[in-house]
Order: sequence, then structure tokens, then C-alpha cells
Amino acid sequence: MTSPFSFELIYQSKKSRARVGRIHTPHGVIDTPNFVPVGTNATLKAVDSAYTDTLGIQLMFCNTYHLILHPGTELIKNAGGLHTFMNRKQPLITDSGGFQVFSLMYGTVNEELKSKGKKQLKNSVLKINEEGVLFRSYRDGNPILLTPESSVQAQKDLGADIIIPLDELPPYHVDKRALFNSFERTHRWEKRSLDEHMLNENNQTMYSVVHGGVDPELRKKSCEFAANLPFGGYAIGGSLGKTHSEMFTMLEKMMPYLPPDKPNHLLGIGDLTSLEPCIKLGIDTMDSSHPTRCARHGLLFTNNGTIKILNAHYQNAFTPLDPECTCYTCSNYTIAYLRHLFKAHELAAYSLASIHNLHFMVQKMATLRAAILNGNL
Amino acid sequence: MTSPFSFELIYQSKKSRARVGRIHTPHGVIDTPNFVPVGTNATLKAVDSAYTDTLGIQLMFCNTYHLILHPGTELIKNAGGLHTFMNRKQPLITDSGGFQVFSLMYGTVNEELKSKGKKQLKNSVLKINEEGVLFRSYRDGNPILLTPESSVQAQKDLGADIIIPLDELPPYHVDKRALFNSFERTHRWEKRSLDEHMLNENNQTMYSVVHGGVDPELRKKSCEFAANLPFGGYAIGGSLGKTHSEMFTMLEKMMPYLPPDKPNHLLGIGDLTSLEPCIKLGIDTMDSSHPTRCARHGLLFTNNGTIKILNAHYQNAFTPLDPECTCYTCSNYTIAYLRHLFKAHELAAYSLASIHNLHFMVQKMATLRAAILNGNL
Repeated sequence: MTSPFSFELIYQSKKSRARVGRIHTPHGVIDTPNFVPVGTNATLKAVDSAYTDTLGIQLMFCNTYHLILHPGTELIKNAGGLHTFMNRKQPLITDSGGFQVFSLMYGTVNEELKSKGKKQLKNSVLKINEEGVLFRSYRDGNPILLTPESSVQAQKDLGADIIIPLDELPPYHVDKRALFNSFERTHRWEKRSLDEHMLNENNQTMYSVVHGGVDPELRKKSCEFAANLPFGGYAIGGSLGKTHSEMFTMLEKMMPYLPPDKPNHLLGIGDLTSLEPCIKLGIDTMDSSHPTRCARHGLLFTNNGTIKILNAHYQNAFTPLDPECTCYTCSNYTIAYLRHLFKAHELAAYSLASIHNLHFMVQKMATLRAAILNGNL
Repeated sequence: MTSPFSFELIYQSKKSRARVGRIHTPHGVIDTPNFVPVGTNATLKAVDSAYTDTLGIQLMFCNTYHLILHPGTELIKNAGGLHTFMNRKQPLITDSGGFQVFSLMYGTVNEELKSKGKKQLKNSVLKINEEGVLFRSYRDGNPILLTPESSVQAQKDLGADIIIPLDELPPYHVDKRALFNSFERTHRWEKRSLDEHMLNENNQTMYSVVHGGVDPELRKKSCEFAANLPFGGYAIGGSLGKTHSEMFTMLEKMMPYLPPDKPNHLLGIGDLTSLEPCIKLGIDTMDSSHPTRCARHGLLFTNNGTIKILNAHYQNAFTPLDPECTCYTCSNYTIAYLRHLFKAHELAAYSLASIHNLHFMVQKMATLRAAILNGNL
């Protein structure tokens, strides 16, 4: 049987590693490079799924960790899977849950970076061993064991098009030996995840997760590990450095080791600064909650820079955020009105701002794809 | 020049005072009887104005008090008026701001009823005299003088189709003499408001506010006062009693004193229990934030009763709130999914629930109009 997944390379830039392609999935095509918004709880924040479909969001990211805790992946399976449950027609990707479990332990990436790895919130993670990781639900305090197999089973219940193997997430501040041990365990966990996935492919494909922290040699080895197994694509995880510049340097070194015949995905990165440099380095898709989070904080993206809508300067701005923008928000409302909704803490503010920023991202990625095709990137 | 406003009586029930009509306004027709949702800050909560238009909400209520405080009625005037500012195509009604000022003094209606009038939050209201009421802005502490003239001017800035004269709102617990003094002052304020309005009608119409508290004799006099002045309709304000039953009794007594050739409006009432009895007593329109507030608390209206969506009973309910409902929410999502969104505190929950309850109200009112026309009410 032919796989319902394939990666079609349309154009490889001659100026950079940037490329234009199409990922074919059972729920339709993902044009690459593309931005992937994060809908943690089976919805984007402040934008419902049916509307998300109309925005042209071709791939959306949901978090297995949150869905295990609520409403439970079995319930979603009984609903007919995640697509049916949330009424999404287009492709979905879920992660393994591992990132959130280890984030609970170390705090957020930024917190960990700031505390230089000294602060550990150990009480939520009860035990990590070769089998998996035992953690406490933040909802009801119940212990939950996440193993490569249980993570894959949870993702089978969900039924997203693209799934991710369980990895161990070492913090940025880790000694060489600990990084290596974690790296080795991650590969064993990824292999177990892939084996579990292959037992019942279920119209899903599994991307590997490339690890190795900020060690270029380990990153190279991780690419080789992934390339030698029948993964459907390559996700890039773990800490890539403290700054944008460190991340770009690491991607520059490692991207040539990823086989070009399969799609890749950069996990958790999607701020405006990162888009173009990452795409030039060969990234196909990248996910982030950045545009929707910015929107809820009143940071609105435009081609002339970001509008901080709470700024008094915009009080009498009776024009749309961007006169050229064709989104629902710009078609219907002025900056002054949106600003008023934000000042009045009206819920409509968050929806309208999120719709605009998501539309901006969709347009931005289309423009970047066109730039590659036109030989300008 | 003919007035752009008229009330067209289509059918007067022979079984009750219920009637079907049409209010013609510069922004279109309002079929009566009808429900009027409250969008305090120039938006319904969790539903944007352009979408509100598509729901078939023919009249929407905005609060002058809140709009004076933010963003200011002058800003809205500069934006081209409230319709343009919020991008609403259909009719709007604004109140005078008085209700909120006096609510600040006595607390909410329920608080006042509970405390039997003993608790007064006087510090926000600085002075009440014949000129008007001086209160402090809850936003910046600045003193604001609201007079009949300034309230009407604010409502001229806003430009809603229907406007309301400034009234003094006596609490439910008030002695006979104080009630009478307030009643007399309200009529003087209403007359001043009407005079101010007539100087520049501005494509707007002013309804009177009928007062008199729970004294049937005063209510009758207030109806007569209103009937003798060129108001465009009659709003019913002030306390009508502590219970639904007291309210229905009072309406039964007073409605015959309102001239039938103009539309009437019941201020601040619109819960499901009140709809049919009030309509039978001859009410044309009634406003309330009840359906949207219920929605945000997970109380979803259906023809088979109200669904409390957080109830564990609905965990696996993979059907719409109401299989017959044609609203966006029911067309796209199941009860189980909506419940999940509520449990996860996702903002989409509040929009989807509000859309459903508003759609329910629109349908409910259409059904009630049909029942009157069919001789069943």
C-alpha cells in the first residue's frame, strides 16, 4: 500500500537551503515553508477550529500532554479522533507530551535559562527511568506514567496526521556527560516510539526529534540516527542555544545532515525574527504560539512593524491595522475600535487580534514561498 | 419632513395584549416583540459586531455611562458615530447613563434588595441636585457631571437610533415621600432631556422612561406624563417589584395606560421566564445581558431546557447542544467539545456559547411572534 504521506519538492533555491514543497497528508496539502500555530487544548486561543480552517492554516499543532490531562485521549478517540472532536478538516500535528513534562521540571525555557539550571520544580515529576517518566497531573494530582509506548498510544487515540516520538529534554545548562546520557536515552525512546507506531500506522506519520543540545557533533549523530530509520520526517528539538544567533549557527551546521527527501519541522520556534533566517537554512515548517500570544497582549503584526495597540498614539486611529490587509478584522474594524476593546478588556479584542495575526502569518509565509520561487531568497 | 421612525402594528392578539409590529428606523426594521442584547462597551461580550449583525439581532443596547468613561463619546463622534465606530449596520439603542450612576450608589439591584437599602456606596456619587448628578469616574477618579442635557449630548455624539432621557433611579427600599420627590424630579429631567433632543433630532428618537416604582398610582401618572409629550416610544424603568410575579402584576396594571400607537421597551429584563408573560402584557422590546452572561457561565439555552455544560453528565455527549439548532456553534461542535473548552478555560468557549444563546433568543422571539400571529398567545 502506498503511504498517504509524501513530500514533493517544488523548488530548491540556488541562493540558500530554502526550498518550496508540498507535504501531502490524508487531510490535505501543507505548502512549505509554512508556519504552524499552536492550539494546545484542541483549539487556537480565542479562535475556534472551523474559523481556523477558513484562515488558511494548513497545519495546526496540539499538545498531547494537555489533552491527556483533559479531556483524556480516550474520550477524544470515542469522539472519532481529534479532527472530528475539534471539527478540523485540515492536517494536525501532535507532540509526545515529553516537552511539557520536562518543562514542569525545569520551568519554561526562559526560566531555565535565567536560573542557569539551578531552579528545578521537581515535585511535579516523580520519577524518570529507562521505562519513561512519572509525573503528577496538575489537574487532580494523580500520577501519570508517560512512556514511549503510552505517548504513541495517546497520539493514536488523537489521530493527528503527524506525530512525534517521546524524547527526554535536557535543559540548556547540563554537563557533557548528562547531555550524552540523555541523548542516548532519547534515541532509545524514539526507536521504541517508532516501533510502537509501526505496529499500527493508522494513516499517521511519525517525525523523529533531532537532539544533541548545543553540541554540533551530537546534533550530527542525531541526524544520522534519524536518517537511518523509517521516520516520515525530521523534527528539530532540544535547546539550540540561548540566542537567535546561536540557533541559526547550529541550524546552519546541522541542516545539511538531514536527508532532503523528507520534510523537517522546527519545534517551538515561530517569532517574526526567526522566520526568514530559518527558512533560508532549509526549515519546512515551524510551530509557535507567538502570534496568538502577541495578539492577546495587543501586539499586532503589520508589514510596517508591530503595532502596540495600547499605545495612546492609536487612540484616534480610525483606519484598519493595515489598509492592505484583507482579514476579517481589518475588513471590519479600525485600530481605534480595537484599542477600545482592549482597554475595556472585551473578549472580542482577543479574537479579532488573533485572527489578524494568524492571517498575517499565512500571508507572510505565502510571500516567503513566492520569494523563494522567484529566486529572491 | 416625515420622521424616519414609525411603529407599524401588524396584529393585535385577541387573547392578550400581545401584539406583532415593526419599528422602522434609519438603520432598518425591528420586528416586535423582540429581545435586545446588551453590548455595554460597544460590543456584545465575546461576539464582535459584524458577526452580531449576521445573527439577526435587530436592536442592540449600548451603555452611555461606560462609553462616556471609555473611549469617550467625543472620540466616537469623531469616528463617525457609534454605528461606524463599532461597525454595526442595524439599529442601536443607548441609555442615559443614569442607571449605572445610581447603581454605583446603591449597588446592583440584587444587592440593594438584599441589603434592604441600608448599604449605600456613596463615595462614587458626589452630589445629586436639580441640575444633575456628579460622580467619580471609576477609571481615573475624575468627577463627571451628568445632567439631562449632557446625557442627551453624549447620546447625540453616539448617534444611536433610540435614546433615553436622564432619570433618577430610586431604590426599591424608599419611603413614599422620597419616591414621590424622585418621581417628580425624573419627570422634570425627562422634559429637559426631550427639549434638548428636539433642538437637534439628528435622525434619532427618544423614548420616555416610565417610573413610579411599585406604586400603581404613580406608574399611571408617569404613563400619562409620557403620553402627553412627543416622545417616540415608552421605556419602562425603575423597580417593578422584588419578584417576577410582582413585576407581571405591575405591568398588567400600567400597560393599558401607554398609548398603543408607539412602541414600548422594558428596560433590563430579558430572562427566559419573563419573555412570554411580558409579551402577553404588551411589551414590544426588552433588553438584557442575561443570555450572554449565562453563556459565559456555561448555561446553554435549548428548547428542552438549559444545559449546564460543566455537568459531568455531558462529558461524552457527542451531539450538538440542540440537534435542530442551525447556529454556527451547533453546526460545528458537540456538547462534549464545548464542555472541554469550558473546562480548559479556552476563550473560544465563551464566543461559541454566546453565539448559541443569542441565536436561541432570535429564534425564540420569531416563534413567539408567529404564535401571536397564529392566535396562540
